[in-house]
Amino acid sequence: MTSGVPHLTTALNGPLLKLEAILLEKQTQVETWLRQQWLKTPAPFYASVDLRNAGFKLAPVDTNLFPAGFNNLNPSFIPLCIHAAQAAVERVCPTAKRVLIVAENHTRNLFYLESLETLRDIFQKAGMEARIGSLLEDIKEPVSIDLPSGKKITLEPLVRNGNRVAVGDFSPCLVLLNNDLSAGRPDILENLEQEVVPPLRAGWSTRKKSDHFTQYNDVAKEFAEQIGIDPWLVSPLTLQCGEVNFKEKSGIECLARNVNNLLTSIRAKYAEYDIDREPFVVVKADSGTYGMGIMTVKSAEEIENLNRKQRNKMSSAKEGLVVDNVLVQEGVYTFETLGDEKAVAEPVIYMMDRYVIGGFYRVHTGRGVNENLNAPGMHFEPLAFAQSCSTPEQNDLPDAEPNRFYAYGVIARLALLAAAREIA
Amino acid sequence: MTSGVPHLTTALNGPLLKLEAILLEKQTQVETWLRQQWLKTPAPFYASVDLRNAGFKLAPVDTNLFPAGFNNLNPSFIPLCIHAAQAAVERVCPTAKRVLIVAENHTRNLFYLESLETLRDIFQKAGMEARIGSLLEDIKEPVSIDLPSGKKITLEPLVRNGNRVAVGDFSPCLVLLNNDLSAGRPDILENLEQEVVPPLRAGWSTRKKSDHFTQYNDVAKEFAEQIGIDPWLVSPLTLQCGEVNFKEKSGIECLARNVNNLLTSIRAKYAEYDIDREPFVVVKADSGTYGMGIMTVKSAEEIENLNRKQRNKMSSAKEGLVVDNVLVQEGVYTFETLGDEKAVAEPVIYMMDRYVIGGFYRVHTGRGVNENLNAPGMHFEPLAFAQSCSTPEQNDLPDAEPNRFYAYGVIARLALLAAAREIA
Repeated sequence: MTSGVPHLTTALNGPLLKLEAILLEKQTQVETWLRQQWLKTPAPFYASVDLRNAGFKLAPVDTNLFPAGFNNLNPSFIPLCIHAAQAAVERVCPTAKRVLIVAENHTRNLFYLESLETLRDIFQKAGMEARIGSLLEDIKEPVSIDLPSGKKITLEPLVRNGNRVAVGDFSPCLVLLNNDLSAGRPDILENLEQEVVPPLRAGWSTRKKSDHFTQYNDVAKEFAEQIGIDPWLVSPLTLQCGEVNFKEKSGIECLARNVNNLLTSIRAKYAEYDIDREPFVVVKADSGTYGMGIMTVKSAEEIENLNRKQRNKMSSAKEGLVVDNVLVQEGVYTFETLGDEKAVAEPVIYMMDRYVIGGFYRVHTGRGVNENLNAPGMHFEPLAFAQSCSTPEQNDLPDAEPNRFYAYGVIARLALLAAAREIA
Repeated sequence: MTSGVPHLTTALNGPLLKLEAILLEKQTQVETWLRQQWLKTPAPFYASVDLRNAGFKLAPVDTNLFPAGFNNLNPSFIPLCIHAAQAAVERVCPTAKRVLIVAENHTRNLFYLESLETLRDIFQKAGMEARIGSLLEDIKEPVSIDLPSGKKITLEPLVRNGNRVAVGDFSPCLVLLNNDLSAGRPDILENLEQEVVPPLRAGWSTRKKSDHFTQYNDVAKEFAEQIGIDPWLVSPLTLQCGEVNFKEKSGIECLARNVNNLLTSIRAKYAEYDIDREPFVVVKADSGTYGMGIMTVKSAEEIENLNRKQRNKMSSAKEGLVVDNVLVQEGVYTFETLGDEKAVAEPVIYMMDRYVIGGFYRVHTGRGVNENLNAPGMHFEPLAFAQSCSTPEQNDLPDAEPNRFYAYGVIARLALLAAAREIA
């Protein structure tokens, strides 16, 4: 069976990553340590993690506990998803026969609907009846939508009956959220007797990126100690500013100061590792997703001199969430590129339970190596990973394809562990 | 990534299997029922199951709790094996970091050694240090052997220290038997404080095929009731004869009588389902493996008129095990063939824990549809399954490739469940 996926050859000719060699050499220790961690803190039901690979460092920049994009995974690895879904369900509700998926609210986004239908189908193939409930008020009866792939998806209105939610007469013991709750925790989902995964508190209405990265930094430190590396090689430096209001220009000074401090720290690290690049930082909303409220800066002056348009953009996170807490994070260069055009390619890794089930590259031709590819309106081409992230080859070079994918899977699982601790 | 595996097109043009349609239609019930069963009786650590697909019925004929042939699986699905190995280890010994594999004794069989090294590598990739211990007396120090695949395998002498076994100073908490103990339970493995899987009692020195098929018939009945089918569609009729000595010609009359009774029962079933084929039965040793002591007969007279050579052959099971109990089993035709030559192809399914991890066809050009392809000295060409057994496609025809593979996986798991109950 062919996957129809080209190998990312140019990307794989990037600078040899020492880290990959160490992860390969210490693979048994890495996996043993991770297994011990999962015994202490069970993995979230599912997640996707955006990574940046700068060659000299490999780090997560975003961990999504309500992943979309399942349609971008390599169809060859759907069996992995199916087995992982069975394991994930077994952990939270061993007797579950059915699952009700609560969808994200952007019904007109066909890419999202393709992902949703792929996710539903994974559960069907795992032997669970799966149906999709929508919170949208304008969905008052089941709606079937034809998808570009030729598949069809059916969305049904989510209704509450006592302490249970249902679509029609379908009210299973397991409710799977695929809605990140950016708009807040909806009443209809509060105090259910059903098992709700991930828990409501994992939604963006309560979750803070800064909490995640605080946990991540601890995880990275512990992990780095295990295998004898500098934790900086796997984690972005991060600072947090409270009470920033871009519209009213309050808190901007604190932000500029933190940007400056962080740039200084990155510069020191670059000097330590002889990296001849200009440091940059990413400023983003502490809550929320979809790349809104994100900006890349190379100096504190850029923050001080923001124009009205830029300030407005930073204020409008998804579904009107007001940006007040702001994360200032080390920007990690993306040095993986594809083809003659040197299209920037960023890996996204998918996990269910503690298993890495696959991933894809976001490939973008029109953007630089230090820009965010998940910005609003940004178009990317997904390029499914040609191989799984579970088959390191000791006899191959550290940066051979299976070993690079393995490294992705390891770092993504560190982010998964951070998320597990975050929502525990 | 291509798997380099041709699709078994001709085989898939066989008679439409009603059973496949039912398994597909009732997939959720099938999986739910299986999940419930694993909660009651945990799956064996690993197993392979030989199936026969007659078009009108699909049944297991042999369940191996110490599987070899891992090298015949599609490399694309090794990630499935790795995840399943992690799950299997987690169930028996969650803190295990290392595994000691106890090998079969035929060191000169390069096919077996390829399988053994593939198995060891699966554990390595799953993040466990894995080494191989041999019981052979002529292995007194570590021996490295170059394999046809270009890999190298290292066998080390298994030694006992107190209540533990080890190779060198490697004495992990988990000991995985890949030796079917046909020659008896070796003293060195008795009363270990280490976790030994599968348990010694699962070895052929104590295990009886008749026990397995007694359990299988119960499983098949319960399963058939769940999905509303005749259990005969998934199980071979089986009778047992005790105290048969082919060399001394004792017990032969009982055997002939049972052969006759079984042929009559099969004939009745063939009449019920309008099957225009000549029934046949397979006579085999109740213990043991490797296809020794197996014979195909179409009448009781064939049993009564066995010549000395045939009787001697039936007496010599693997490693001199004397045949005394004999299983008389309905022969299931193999109507899957490959290519213009109509080479007979028999599926073998591999499982770890409760997960189907893959399979292959034994393809043989020189034998008939009612002969045993796993006979001593028989050469077969392995043809790895092109797809996994976990991705049924509701929108495809019931006998489309993914659905046929799914059916194999279901019936193989019924045999796995029977084995689980057998060794519980």
